[in-house]
Amino acid sequence: MAGMTDIRPPRFLDACRRKPVDKTPVWLMRQAGRYMAEYRELRKDYGMLDLIHEPKLACQVTMQPIDAFDLDAAIIFADILPPLEGLGLKVGFEAGEGPIVYNAVRDEAAIKSLKDPDIQETTWFTLEAIKLVRQQLDPRGIPLIGFSGAPFTLASYSVEGGSSKDFILTKRLMMGRPDLWKQLMDKLTTLVGGYLKAQAEAGAQALQIFDTWAGLLGPADYARFALPYNRAIVQEAKTAGVPVIYFSTGTDGMLELAAQTGADVIGVDWRIDLAEAWRRIGPEFAIQGNLDPTCLLADWPAVEERTAAVLDSAGGRPGHIFNLGHGVLRETSVEQVTRLVDFVHQYQVKPGA
Amino acid sequence: MAGMTDIRPPRFLDACRRKPVDKTPVWLMRQAGRYMAEYRELRKDYGMLDLIHEPKLACQVTMQPIDAFDLDAAIIFADILPPLEGLGLKVGFEAGEGPIVYNAVRDEAAIKSLKDPDIQETTWFTLEAIKLVRQQLDPRGIPLIGFSGAPFTLASYSVEGGSSKDFILTKRLMMGRPDLWKQLMDKLTTLVGGYLKAQAEAGAQALQIFDTWAGLLGPADYARFALPYNRAIVQEAKTAGVPVIYFSTGTDGMLELAAQTGADVIGVDWRIDLAEAWRRIGPEFAIQGNLDPTCLLADWPAVEERTAAVLDSAGGRPGHIFNLGHGVLRETSVEQVTRLVDFVHQYQVKPGA
Repeated sequence: MAGMTDIRPPRFLDACRRKPVDKTPVWLMRQAGRYMAEYRELRKDYGMLDLIHEPKLACQVTMQPIDAFDLDAAIIFADILPPLEGLGLKVGFEAGEGPIVYNAVRDEAAIKSLKDPDIQETTWFTLEAIKLVRQQLDPRGIPLIGFSGAPFTLASYSVEGGSSKDFILTKRLMMGRPDLWKQLMDKLTTLVGGYLKAQAEAGAQALQIFDTWAGLLGPADYARFALPYNRAIVQEAKTAGVPVIYFSTGTDGMLELAAQTGADVIGVDWRIDLAEAWRRIGPEFAIQGNLDPTCLLADWPAVEERTAAVLDSAGGRPGHIFNLGHGVLRETSVEQVTRLVDFVHQYQVKPGA
Repeated sequence: MAGMTDIRPPRFLDACRRKPVDKTPVWLMRQAGRYMAEYRELRKDYGMLDLIHEPKLACQVTMQPIDAFDLDAAIIFADILPPLEGLGLKVGFEAGEGPIVYNAVRDEAAIKSLKDPDIQETTWFTLEAIKLVRQQLDPRGIPLIGFSGAPFTLASYSVEGGSSKDFILTKRLMMGRPDLWKQLMDKLTTLVGGYLKAQAEAGAQALQIFDTWAGLLGPADYARFALPYNRAIVQEAKTAGVPVIYFSTGTDGMLELAAQTGADVIGVDWRIDLAEAWRRIGPEFAIQGNLDPTCLLADWPAVEERTAAVLDSAGGRPGHIFNLGHGVLRETSVEQVTRLVDFVHQYQVKPGA
C-alpha cells in the first residue's frame, strides 16, 4: 500500500482519457460503507443523511477507504436522493426499507409544483465536502469523483416514493402520459446537469452518473424516455472540462444506447464479458468494470481467478478502469478488498488473453 | 375469440419448429394467476400448494385463461419448487415473502442427504393434472406446455431458502466450493431431466425451462456453473420428442450462451430488441417474447405501440412465439390481456419493418 506522502501517478484520470497508464487504476463503487468498521462506528452516532448533510463528516467518510486501501480515486460520500430536496421532495433512509421519498410525485399538480432549485444553496453540503476532501487528496495526488443519479433513476424514486420491484407507477406515468413524463424529466435534467457542473466547479475531477434502474426499460423505451435526458446532462457536465462516466445495470442488451449518452467512460455490470462490452460500445470509449461484487464473499482464489479474467478481458488496453460491476456489498471483508486492490495493481495481463 | 368447438391450427408447436404459421402464436407466462377474478376466487379457499397438489384444481386453474382468452397454448398450473420435495426439501409460499425452502441446503451434509426421488411418485399430482388438462384441450386443438425450473435457479432457492437480493450464500457455495456445487447441481439435473421427461410422457407437448436467476451470473460463471447442467436437461427432455423452450432473464449480455443450452426456442426478456436477440442466438432457433409486462398497466395505445414493435421486430419470420418478457403482473386487467391476444393475431407486420 502507498504511504501517505507518496504522490500517485494520475492513472485514473489518464485512463478516463484512454491514455496509457503504469498500472490499471482501481476504485470501487460504494467503497465507503458498512463493510468498513470505521463507517459502522460513525453510523452509531449519525444517520445516513446526517453524514451527508455535514461536510466534515462526509469528508471523513470519503477518506476512510482512501486511508485503508491503495485506491486510485476517491468518490465523494453522498447519495443520489438528497439533491431532490431542492425540488421540494422530502427524502430519507429507513432501516430495512432503503431510500424513501415521502411526498412522491405522481400527477400533473405534483410535477408542476416542483421547485426550481438554487443548486449552490440546496446541495451546499456536498459542494463544501468536495472542497474539504480535495484539500486532503491533493497532496497525495488522488483525484475526486463527484456523482449524481441519472434523471430516469431519480424519476423512478420520485414517482414510486422509494425502491420497488416492478416500478409500475413510474412506467405507467412514462408510457401513459409522455407529456407529463417530459415535464418531470426536464426538471430533473436541469437539476442533474446543474448539480454535476457545480460539483466539478467545487473541485470534482471526474463525474459519474448512476442510472441504476435503466435496466427496467426495454431499448425503445430507454431511447425515447431516458437517453435524450442523459445526453443533455452529459453535455452539460462536459462543459466543466472533466471526464464523465455513465454507469447503468441490467442494460447489457442495449449497451450501444448507453454509449450514445456521449459519456467518456461507460461503466458496465458483471453480466457481460468486458471485451464483448467494449467491442459493442466501441474503442472511442473508456470502460469501467466489472467484477461480480458477490465474489468478494468467497475465498481469495475465487476472487483472484475472476479479477484476472476481467483484467485479461480488458487486455491491458488504455482506457480500462477496474471496478466492481455494482457496489461493494456490506458483507465484504476489508482483507479481501485490500488484496483485490493490490492484485489489480500488480497483475500482468496474460499475453494473448 | 375462438368458440369452444373450433379446432385451432397447431401454430404454437409449428412456430417452435420454425414452420410457417397462419398467425403469430401467443401465450403468456403466468397466464393463470392473481390478475384473474376466477383465480382469486379459488385462492380464497385454497393455498397455492393446495391448488398444485390437487390435480382437478390444477387443471381448473390451467383452463381459466384458456377459457378467457384466445391463447395458442396452455401451460400446466404448477410451480418450480414442489419437485424439490422429492429431494427431501420442505417448500411453501408465504404471503409477502414468496417461495420458501424451510430446510435450506448449505453444506456437504445437507447436499449428501438429498434423496433420489421417484419422479412418478413425488410429482404425481402435476403429471396427473397434465393428463386431465389434455382431455380438455385436445378437442380444441390447444397444446399443453409442461415446465421446470432450471438447475441453477432451483439451486439458488435451495441454498438461500427463498428469494434473495444478492444470492450471496448461493454464489459463495458455487465459487468457493465448486466440488459441492457440482454434487448439488448433479442431483438437481437428474431431478429436472427426469421431471421434464415425465411431463412429456404424461402429455405435455412442449417443455419450458425457467432459469429466472441466471442473470445473477457473469458469463464465465454461467458457462461453468449453470450451462453444462442446462445442456444435460435439454438433451434429456429432447429424448421425449417435444420442443424445449429455455427462458432466462437478465442474460442479454450472454444470450449466445443461452443458445448453447441446445433448446429449440430461446425465451428473452424485454431488455433487448427482439431482432437483435434473434440475430445473436442465430436463425436456427425459434424465439419467444418479449413485451414488457409493465406496459399492460398503461392505457391501450401504449400497449398497442409496443406490441406492434415486438411483432415488427420479429418481422413475421417463422419461429416467433409472442409472449411477455416475464410473467403477467397481478395488477394487469383482463381487458388488456384480451385486447393484447387479439391484437397479436390480427396484426399485419409492416413491410420493411
